[in-house]
Amino acid sequence: MQFSDQFSDSRGDFTSARRLRADQARQVADVLRHQILAGTYTETLPAEQQLADEFTVSRNTVREALSLLRTDGLIDRAPKVGTRPTTRKFDHSLEALLGLQETLKEHGTVRNEVRTATLISAPTAVARRLGLDPGARVVYIERLRFLADLPLSLDLTYLTPEIGAEVLRHDLETNDIFVLLEQISGQSLGRADLALEAVAADPHTATTLDSPVGAPLLMLERLSHLEDETPVDLEYIRMRGDRITMRGSLTRATPEWKVL
Amino acid sequence: MQFSDQFSDSRGDFTSARRLRADQARQVADVLRHQILAGTYTETLPAEQQLADEFTVSRNTVREALSLLRTDGLIDRAPKVGTRPTTRKFDHSLEALLGLQETLKEHGTVRNEVRTATLISAPTAVARRLGLDPGARVVYIERLRFLADLPLSLDLTYLTPEIGAEVLRHDLETNDIFVLLEQISGQSLGRADLALEAVAADPHTATTLDSPVGAPLLMLERLSHLEDETPVDLEYIRMRGDRITMRGSLTRATPEWKVL
Repeated sequence: MQFSDQFSDSRGDFTSARRLRADQARQVADVLRHQILAGTYTETLPAEQQLADEFTVSRNTVREALSLLRTDGLIDRAPKVGTRPTTRKFDHSLEALLGLQETLKEHGTVRNEVRTATLISAPTAVARRLGLDPGARVVYIERLRFLADLPLSLDLTYLTPEIGAEVLRHDLETNDIFVLLEQISGQSLGRADLALEAVAADPHTATTLDSPVGAPLLMLERLSHLEDETPVDLEYIRMRGDRITMRGSLTRATPEWKVL
Repeated sequence: MQFSDQFSDSRGDFTSARRLRADQARQVADVLRHQILAGTYTETLPAEQQLADEFTVSRNTVREALSLLRTDGLIDRAPKVGTRPTTRKFDHSLEALLGLQETLKEHGTVRNEVRTATLISAPTAVARRLGLDPGARVVYIERLRFLADLPLSLDLTYLTPEIGAEVLRHDLETNDIFVLLEQISGQSLGRADLALEAVAADPHTATTLDSPVGAPLLMLERLSHLEDETPVDLEYIRMRGDRITMRGSLTRATPEWKVL
């Protein structure tokens, strides 16, 4: 089937009569989103008319696009100042296995509020993933993580018992657990398996993360192994969607070392 | 600082008096979430009392955990049948660069509703990322993508003009654009840079994706290159959070071929 005839637009811009304004606004917002996250606009965004000219859309469409970005917490609008990018969104790596403090070291100090740190009997599913017998004791740690007093994530962590007991003897308020695991084990971390989802903040999580109920969260489940492939650290991490972007790269062919 | 004294719990289970029921419910829900997504429960979940025993929590806590999972669309509850996992969530690869149909081939046929397919003047930011002069013409394609009549994602795609014009001559309703790009260019795709965020569905997107306003979406921005490193395909993809999980693995050390 040919779509070029059916859909081609002789005006060659975003203003095709077939396109709804809301579709155009999303299209404009997506391009601006990247620019904002890339730090293109250090002070204010271009004026509405300038954006309208750039994208060949109406000012109303630009306003609708800016409204979408404001809802996502990417920009502020202030009288006389104009539209400014907010600087509350940080990159987390999908490129290499890094702890939060390691990832954000250029942005400041991550502070961890330790909500729970204890030994528990592992549920069967947790024990199995950590390579332990059902009912084995594991260390459970729950941390609320801040950068510059902004809550970023709520992390639920299960550690194998020997190394976990040692982790509990260290300062968890300022250290990444990854760094402690390497110090204690004397070996580097190796591979981590991860699953990333978008979920809505339930009321209790929302209160904990100081975000609205239903706010979008990045939910990361991650099983990390030591270099010798021993599973050691199972985490369930809820990151505020307006604070964290996961960034990495992929290649078309799966490199051989990644084939499981 | 030592946390082991301060927090250690002599009962060694999930029922520490210090833990709120909501915290326990989240903890239980996270473990069950993995089990459900992994396909552990083919028919129904274990009974509430069994789960309460397994996690050493009250039945009320189990009910609260199940309620969280139901809100996320992972389970249904039906009278007399019990709690069943839904089968509407699919894995997408963070391991290798794959199109949606390639990823989901075991689950069925992806159908693409082509909402727009046209030539436009590229906004400066789009032109720059595709290695084109400002104002260059690019091909713009907007697709709503379904698996078995379930809307999965809304994809906004910008293609470089020569290869894009050829793409428009092909059937876009059933083909992945990645496959077409390789057929047309005669070379494999190479590396893609990607950014993943969690965002809330705005009203218009929600209507398009048949989800509630404010529903969590995985937002993927992806710039794909041909094997010779020519940028060719810039995409903005909104995936329904209740339909897609991104899955992959990372290693602690960045492999050399990935250093940019």
